[in-house]
Amino acid sequence: MRVVVWNENRHEKTNQVVSDIYPKGIHGAIADFLKEDIEDVKTATLDEPEHGLTDEVLNQTDVLIWWGHKAHDEVKDEIVEKVHKRVLEGMGLVVLHSGHFSKIFKKLMGTTCDLKWREADEKERLWVIDPSHPITAGLGEYIELEKEEMYGEHFDIPAPDQLIFLSWFEGGEVFRSGATYHRGNGKVFYFRPGHETYPTYYNKEIQKVIKNGVKWVSPTDRPRPTYGNVEALEEISGK
Amino acid sequence: MRVVVWNENRHEKTNQVVSDIYPKGIHGAIADFLKEDIEDVKTATLDEPEHGLTDEVLNQTDVLIWWGHKAHDEVKDEIVEKVHKRVLEGMGLVVLHSGHFSKIFKKLMGTTCDLKWREADEKERLWVIDPSHPITAGLGEYIELEKEEMYGEHFDIPAPDQLIFLSWFEGGEVFRSGATYHRGNGKVFYFRPGHETYPTYYNKEIQKVIKNGVKWVSPTDRPRPTYGNVEALEEISGK
Amino acid sequence: MRVVVWNENRHEKTNQVVSDIYPKGIHGAIADFLKEDIEDVKTATLDEPEHGLTDEVLNQTDVLIWWGHKAHDEVKDEIVEKVHKRVLEGMGLVVLHSGHFSKIFKKLMGTTCDLKWREADEKERLWVIDPSHPITAGLGEYIELEKEEMYGEHFDIPAPDQLIFLSWFEGGEVFRSGATYHRGNGKVFYFRPGHETYPTYYNKEIQKVIKNGVKWVSPTDRPRPTYGNVEALEEISGK
Amino acid sequence: MRVVVWNENRHEKTNQVVSDIYPKGIHGAIADFLKEDIEDVKTATLDEPEHGLTDEVLNQTDVLIWWGHKAHDEVKDEIVEKVHKRVLEGMGLVVLHSGHFSKIFKKLMGTTCDLKWREADEKERLWVIDPSHPITAGLGEYIELEKEEMYGEHFDIPAPDQLIFLSWFEGGEVFRSGATYHRGNGKVFYFRPGHETYPTYYNKEIQKVIKNGVKWVSPTDRPRPTYGNVEALEEISGK
Repeated sequence: MRVVVWNENRHEKTNQVVSDIYPKGIHGAIADFLKEDIEDVKTATLDEPEHGLTDEVLNQTDVLIWWGHKAHDEVKDEIVEKVHKRVLEGMGLVVLHSGHFSKIFKKLMGTTCDLKWREADEKERLWVIDPSHPITAGLGEYIELEKEEMYGEHFDIPAPDQLIFLSWFEGGEVFRSGATYHRGNGKVFYFRPGHETYPTYYNKEIQKVIKNGVKWVSPTDRPRPTYGNVEALEEISGK
Repeated sequence: MRVVVWNENRHEKTNQVVSDIYPKGIHGAIADFLKEDIEDVKTATLDEPEHGLTDEVLNQTDVLIWWGHKAHDEVKDEIVEKVHKRVLEGMGLVVLHSGHFSKIFKKLMGTTCDLKWREADEKERLWVIDPSHPITAGLGEYIELEKEEMYGEHFDIPAPDQLIFLSWFEGGEVFRSGATYHRGNGKVFYFRPGHETYPTYYNKEIQKVIKNGVKWVSPTDRPRPTYGNVEALEEISGK
Repeated sequence: MRVVVWNENRHEKTNQVVSDIYPKGIHGAIADFLKEDIEDVKTATLDEPEHGLTDEVLNQTDVLIWWGHKAHDEVKDEIVEKVHKRVLEGMGLVVLHSGHFSKIFKKLMGTTCDLKWREADEKERLWVIDPSHPITAGLGEYIELEKEEMYGEHFDIPAPDQLIFLSWFEGGEVFRSGATYHRGNGKVFYFRPGHETYPTYYNKEIQKVIKNGVKWVSPTDRPRPTYGNVEALEEISGK
Repeated sequence: MRVVVWNENRHEKTNQVVSDIYPKGIHGAIADFLKEDIEDVKTATLDEPEHGLTDEVLNQTDVLIWWGHKAHDEVKDEIVEKVHKRVLEGMGLVVLHSGHFSKIFKKLMGTTCDLKWREADEKERLWVIDPSHPITAGLGEYIELEKEEMYGEHFDIPAPDQLIFLSWFEGGEVFRSGATYHRGNGKVFYFRPGHETYPTYYNKEIQKVIKNGVKWVSPTDRPRPTYGNVEALEEISGK
């Protein structure tokens, strides 16, 4: 399994709070815990040439993790098209937190992916809704985060193929926090937590979910279907 | 209820077979049978200014029906954006046959919407898979079309929110022929039959499905949710 | 449309708090507001012969509403079988609150339908998750109930065909509060609120949801499919 | 992983055609190919004490495969209850072919699970509908079986959580042939092929699907949720 952790990596350069929490960047922190289980973990960031997502990199990636926030618009449409194509070919995609507004997630969902939000150091509790799902392996009934940004419904996404987590927030909102989608040959997992000003990605349970998610979205070993004009498999009467 | 039947209306101008079957255009044929039940039915076509879909028209449309085939690329992106926005605001959308490859359907689905196809005068049988669904009202167990174009799986769409019809084709293929989706405040119904060289839209059962579909996608009377930064509804501890 | 409101009607006989709130019984209160829109609304209760659900009654019912709590076990299996059969034939079913543990709901779901609960006068906020769904017509973004019993996840049900409401509770839990299911020719709507010691069924928004729900589950006009041994529709090669 | 292949094992005792094809029983044939990949594969049959499904066996089973046909009624309700409980606790269940009418499958589905059928040596073609699903790993676009019993829609099941295969039959029918369900902590995979008078379980692609299915339904490592009366996690105002 070959994983690439993609990060916008802008807050880390301009906000001392963020760089203090994530000295190696959010991508670095995520790559670090993934390496505990997976040998081939690389990172890529917005300001690299082609955002670090060259054809060579994409073609050798089984699972792509995406974190972005303030610079979604700077991601080139051409790269988004390539990532989209790769997902439909089978590459897994894990979209984290504010990645809900990324071009690639919106393109795959077909909706605005808009939501309510608030920064108020709120307690978040992520309840497991589907205890049969492999993404919940090793977890208890809920994950509690002492302080996080709030995301609230309505979350403008298509109904998830599987809904896995629901968040409760102190200030009165709920949110579909863990959702999976099948798109073409590929699988997508959206997971809510991870605002840049909190140390969320050091939380062991959050790490477990992301590890499980990477495993769950990993490619199914099979060819992409063929499309277009085809011959009949059976004789058609009178022809 | 205000319905607009949109048609590319190009085959009708260049192919005698098509214009013989549909002298008033495919849009005209569909509008005709809808008017049996609905008072306010209009049509719009590609070659009209703004494709007949001005802001005024779109804002006064409850349900839009879409038929297109050979000129999908000529539909302006700007109009597609407006239709997309209206669907998310609640306008119903019924996509017919080769409309699977329209810009608006692909944008709402997030996938290629590709499929297999063959023109060989094949028998098609559309089986009712969800007999509880209002779109199947008044139908028997299946609809039989003596001759149609074949569409076959894999159909590269997200798993439908509700799968209503499955087609059997003489030449050996199957197809998810009736599928519904919820997107934002809007509802979408894709219905497969209706190749331009067959008189499919004169079939009374096909007409019934389209009538039922129009009713099913019609807007739910409620506001679009609000999005963005919000105040807490509950007191947050220590604040 | 012919509606029957079924109620266990036991708390009303033994608990002064409940009979003060619902002097005509929970069934009476629900029937009263449904009659504002629907002409033919009847009630039936546990202690009537055959629980008020004779063959004659069931065969003339389009939509059955179910409220039960402490006497689920006293509902005769034979009656449950008949109701189950009628749902699969197309009769709509609206299951309210503690009806989650009724024999009929458990039989239709195939799971324990268990959940967490607490009686602590908690604020409940039911968020609209699917703003396109007709059951949400006329509502705002959420319904607030000042005091209700808490129901919390995990709710041991199959993933709903459509998830419509999510509840937030003051004490830290979330719950899938509005869920629809298609079963055979029938449709089922589970709606959470309505603990017997609160005046929830006088709340205008709750009434609107139940009215919308009754409309949504109402039968689709079509025959039940045929099952069993059948002749081939097409010639089978070499036979 | 510990797998138990359960078989009614009655046709094998009374029908020479069946015992010639499956000299070790259908269970023996399935166990044989599973053992290529899995170490701990056992079998159990109807006529053993407790149908071979003692508490000890069930408690040590990760995945149960079920084949039954003519003796569904002889399976004791008490054993069905135990299997049901184990599925909700996380044991995977693979239901094959005529197992659609088994007590355990009907109990988990909540519907009649009825269908159309015909024995006419028909060609079946199972099309892959969800190419992202791990159950399709290693397959092409469809599996072809030269001769099989026909199963046709309407198949009276709840809409699958994931629909994976659709069958085309020579005689004019279609069928949802591969379907998965989440129930409690457990996962269920229904797979259509395998009539007793055909050598279907020797087909390498069918074997691959069953192997993939066993892997897919295998238990997620996590506790069953707790249910019932609970304390509040957060302070409730005024209490």
